[in-house]
Amino acid sequence: MQALVERLYPICRSLTGPGNRQTLAIIGESVDLALTELPSGTEVFDWVIPDEWTPRSAEIVGPDGVARARFKDHNLHLLGCSVSVDREMDLAELLEHIYTLPDEPDLIPYVVSYYKRDWGFAMKDREKRALPPGRYRVTIDTTLEPGSMTFGEAVLPGRTDREVLISTYVCHPSMANDNLSGIAVAAALYRLVASMPDRHYSYRFIWIPETIGAIAWLALNQDHAKQKIAAGMVLSCVGDEGPLTWKLSRRGDTEIDRIARLVLARSDLDHRITPFLPAKGSDERQFGSPGFNLPVGLLSRSVPGEFRSYHTSGDTPDLVTAEGHAGSLKTAYEMIATLESNSIRYKRIDPHCEPMLSNKRLIQSVSIRNRPGYDMTADPLVALRWVLNYCDGEHDLLDIAELSDVPMPALASAAQRAHQAGLLTIV
Amino acid sequence: MQALVERLYPICRSLTGPGNRQTLAIIGESVDLALTELPSGTEVFDWVIPDEWTPRSAEIVGPDGVARARFKDHNLHLLGCSVSVDREMDLAELLEHIYTLPDEPDLIPYVVSYYKRDWGFAMKDREKRALPPGRYRVTIDTTLEPGSMTFGEAVLPGRTDREVLISTYVCHPSMANDNLSGIAVAAALYRLVASMPDRHYSYRFIWIPETIGAIAWLALNQDHAKQKIAAGMVLSCVGDEGPLTWKLSRRGDTEIDRIARLVLARSDLDHRITPFLPAKGSDERQFGSPGFNLPVGLLSRSVPGEFRSYHTSGDTPDLVTAEGHAGSLKTAYEMIATLESNSIRYKRIDPHCEPMLSNKRLIQSVSIRNRPGYDMTADPLVALRWVLNYCDGEHDLLDIAELSDVPMPALASAAQRAHQAGLLTIV
Amino acid sequence: MQALVERLYPICRSLTGPGNRQTLAIIGESVDLALTELPSGTEVFDWVIPDEWTPRSAEIVGPDGVARARFKDHNLHLLGCSVSVDREMDLAELLEHIYTLPDEPDLIPYVVSYYKRDWGFAMKDREKRALPPGRYRVTIDTTLEPGSMTFGEAVLPGRTDREVLISTYVCHPSMANDNLSGIAVAAALYRLVASMPDRHYSYRFIWIPETIGAIAWLALNQDHAKQKIAAGMVLSCVGDEGPLTWKLSRRGDTEIDRIARLVLARSDLDHRITPFLPAKGSDERQFGSPGFNLPVGLLSRSVPGEFRSYHTSGDTPDLVTAEGHAGSLKTAYEMIATLESNSIRYKRIDPHCEPMLSNKRLIQSVSIRNRPGYDMTADPLVALRWVLNYCDGEHDLLDIAELSDVPMPALASAAQRAHQAGLLTIV
Repeated sequence: MQALVERLYPICRSLTGPGNRQTLAIIGESVDLALTELPSGTEVFDWVIPDEWTPRSAEIVGPDGVARARFKDHNLHLLGCSVSVDREMDLAELLEHIYTLPDEPDLIPYVVSYYKRDWGFAMKDREKRALPPGRYRVTIDTTLEPGSMTFGEAVLPGRTDREVLISTYVCHPSMANDNLSGIAVAAALYRLVASMPDRHYSYRFIWIPETIGAIAWLALNQDHAKQKIAAGMVLSCVGDEGPLTWKLSRRGDTEIDRIARLVLARSDLDHRITPFLPAKGSDERQFGSPGFNLPVGLLSRSVPGEFRSYHTSGDTPDLVTAEGHAGSLKTAYEMIATLESNSIRYKRIDPHCEPMLSNKRLIQSVSIRNRPGYDMTADPLVALRWVLNYCDGEHDLLDIAELSDVPMPALASAAQRAHQAGLLTIV
Repeated sequence: MQALVERLYPICRSLTGPGNRQTLAIIGESVDLALTELPSGTEVFDWVIPDEWTPRSAEIVGPDGVARARFKDHNLHLLGCSVSVDREMDLAELLEHIYTLPDEPDLIPYVVSYYKRDWGFAMKDREKRALPPGRYRVTIDTTLEPGSMTFGEAVLPGRTDREVLISTYVCHPSMANDNLSGIAVAAALYRLVASMPDRHYSYRFIWIPETIGAIAWLALNQDHAKQKIAAGMVLSCVGDEGPLTWKLSRRGDTEIDRIARLVLARSDLDHRITPFLPAKGSDERQFGSPGFNLPVGLLSRSVPGEFRSYHTSGDTPDLVTAEGHAGSLKTAYEMIATLESNSIRYKRIDPHCEPMLSNKRLIQSVSIRNRPGYDMTADPLVALRWVLNYCDGEHDLLDIAELSDVPMPALASAAQRAHQAGLLTIV
Repeated sequence: MQALVERLYPICRSLTGPGNRQTLAIIGESVDLALTELPSGTEVFDWVIPDEWTPRSAEIVGPDGVARARFKDHNLHLLGCSVSVDREMDLAELLEHIYTLPDEPDLIPYVVSYYKRDWGFAMKDREKRALPPGRYRVTIDTTLEPGSMTFGEAVLPGRTDREVLISTYVCHPSMANDNLSGIAVAAALYRLVASMPDRHYSYRFIWIPETIGAIAWLALNQDHAKQKIAAGMVLSCVGDEGPLTWKLSRRGDTEIDRIARLVLARSDLDHRITPFLPAKGSDERQFGSPGFNLPVGLLSRSVPGEFRSYHTSGDTPDLVTAEGHAGSLKTAYEMIATLESNSIRYKRIDPHCEPMLSNKRLIQSVSIRNRPGYDMTADPLVALRWVLNYCDGEHDLLDIAELSDVPMPALASAAQRAHQAGLLTIV
């Protein structure tokens, strides 16, 4: 994952354009990706697909002859979707088009003007304050004209057409944790899920531009989204070593939310559950708009917007680590494994009393149990008694995991053995 | 409010009588008050309106010739509703008619005998213990005979006949926090509500004798109370600087209870929410009797019965302050403003995804948001996104305020702007 | 209770056999006990009644001529349901049949082989490690052949056939807290309930072998159990001075669970509520199997399995105390008294406002109440106001006790007085 982040880092992505296609082509090397090109001008709900943007070069040459804010030095220097400009102006006029972070004077901020034609530069505040007075030559060479917006999808079919949606975004220029980590973890997760035998759910992975990409995908798949999506997660900022964070889906108590609580609660890593906030985050805001209200949450480490280098040139590949990515991937995969385990519903055949276990080779005949300090969660008999009591047609394995502190894999295994012994039926 | 308290303080009020009419006349100087006179003997549910009481004078002259417990010195000296007496007796007999607080030897207690004909005096315990032995001349000059019970009502009509009830009591003799503060805050609140433009609710303010007054008002307005009252509050002990206190209505989760939680939680003042207790408090006990079960709570500062000078001569105008009254008035008014804001129900016209805001001049095109430390609750875009997501036909603005930490006025303003931009409809 | 424990301690009980009949005969001295003999081979749900076991003697004689692990010294030395054996063997072979607790080297563990024919001994680990090498003579003289399993029942009829079930077990050899304390408290509780006048509920006490006894009783009384049992408790480990513990019934919120919460919360003793766990405990696991799901919890002091001498020779009569037993008995009896109080449902005749109490001699006419520090829970007027407000047809006395902090006996008494005064009707 770290290598993929480093490889994708230099590319200048936006809502549209060649950088996005190049990114999707690299993802497609390890994922069976289908691309969609949506023409500029297409209406998607309240929105319109914008013109395609191709940045080529940009710089400011000062009265001292020094070239500054060069696009080729850092693609964050150029305002996202900036139009072309080529002329001289005084410092005062130039400053109206320069964006900085006064409280972070050594970081270039990430600034865009997606839906209003404008030009501009972003730079370090320290550099801006050192600009000498005088005449500046401003050159921006871009194209912003009808074309298309590109996104990629990959589906891993399961036994049913109930779908799990994994969504991440591909629209940020050079930033590592906010954007590339999600791309990399999604690609790795795709390969893990591809190797799961006998999947109950189908899995749909989408790599899309943030906001308008999600809106476009939902517009194109409106009925499908409402009828088929059983669970989902957006991946964002999953590469640093901040605490594992699940932002609840809008409904807050769906199966995937409960699974996230369970998996995080048993994780060795720091973790937290945060409520659904419509004002902040990523595409879970679109999936969780009231017309869809899908069971899709957001998995992150540090929360978007809450780490220092967020949306700046400080968000480099140094910020993300193998360990950070691995913790996110493991969590996402455990959530999916739990979802799969919970797709089988067992029920006691005769629900009266405990069954006789020793005659079914389910327990040893002579044993010393229940001594003080005895670790019950590790005892297969304990898992067995939980499933034999609570597989009553009203509780699924997730309910039992929540009630019992017994790990989900132990419950799933106990239920399988009880099923083989003729004590449980599959509903 | 402080001036009104001081002006009303010397008057001797009871369930009935000239002191009550004088009090209501003074309230009527600033409030458009309609008076009701209910004749003695009228049956109101399980109760009967008592005879009217007119106290004129009372004193005890001792063997030393000293006059004590004179009604003209403090009207708490005379047992409320005491009958007349004029005779000599020994100290022993006299003591059976004298009430004191042994644990507060310098305070005269407030004692009444509303429903059993009796005579008596209240005095400081220190004074009682100093009474010399010998013969005493006891003189009480009162009238207790058929007349009527008086109460006042003032209605401020709104667009609808759904009503908010503001109730306080006018039956205590010289006590400031317990009684006069409620009268004063209710009168000031009346004037504030009168100046609110375009009220959704109608507002009914009642100044009544405690318990029997509330019972009489409910008996006279039984169907009206059950059908029209949408919310209400009793005001009691709202003049000191104790923590703002909302005693929940009997149902505990009505709109006005939730609003009280919200407004208090965001108050700068100390505050607390207490459960509904039927055994203690004021007229919320009658409004919250099972046959009515109205959404009416109790707003107070110090809780009735829980401050040291409660129901004694220590409850003087010195106990209440301009700041104490103002905090109560502000809270009650904010609760009403929140209730009014929440009377409009908005709903997304097309609920799919977030609308495009920049093309509707609802947000700036270029902006740097979501930096660490950014104060989201102050951002109009944040309020806008909350209402655009949660105005789904299932949540009202109060729900959103509870979910979001965004202040109600910001939500109301965001909803208005989104309505003007054609994104929300009014249900 | 202590005396009964000491008298029963030496007897060797098991699932079946003469020790059980002897135990039930002793219980029957103070309880009107009906015995059931269930033949070996009878099928009860998934189980079969085992053969009857009669142990007579057992010992190991070593190469040094010393007799060890003698049944006559401690009946825990012999593996429960061990078959007979009489032969010589080397130490190595013998050790395969010896059970010890390495972490408690001075305690003999309680070991059984109920459902697989085997022989064996239990001893102190320290003693086992000192066994000299060489030839051993092993002698076990038992009978294991068709007979019957015995259990006892005693019913105290009430006004209705709704039943309260009190269950405890009689299958452990010499252990005091785990087994005998339950037998003793159940017998004492039987006598207390027998002396309660005018019982609403009928009370069924059962003394049964653990697990298979409960399963057999449920099999024989399947419809009765489902239709008649209104509440119940299993008694186990109720003789030590550990904190009073109520393990919730499977449903967790039944009337008896709520009563346990209430009674324990107001107990002077340490106490705790634990969730229903199907993997650990006593016969509440059978009563709480999904096919029955009865409102039956477990009352204990120390929790079975969680005290040091549990299931060992350390669980002697010294471990249980008069105070320990008394605290359990008092708690169980208060729970039953609360259940009886709550069986009468009162309702206000006219639910509007508070009734006039002074004219019904329900309160004094002149009083000084509500002073700071006033103890409201001790005031009969407080209890009266609670029942007059909340006896609305939706709340029973238990609801009111939970809401109010007023003790149940005070509420029951207030409701009776209000009923006599014509304010409440019995539903």
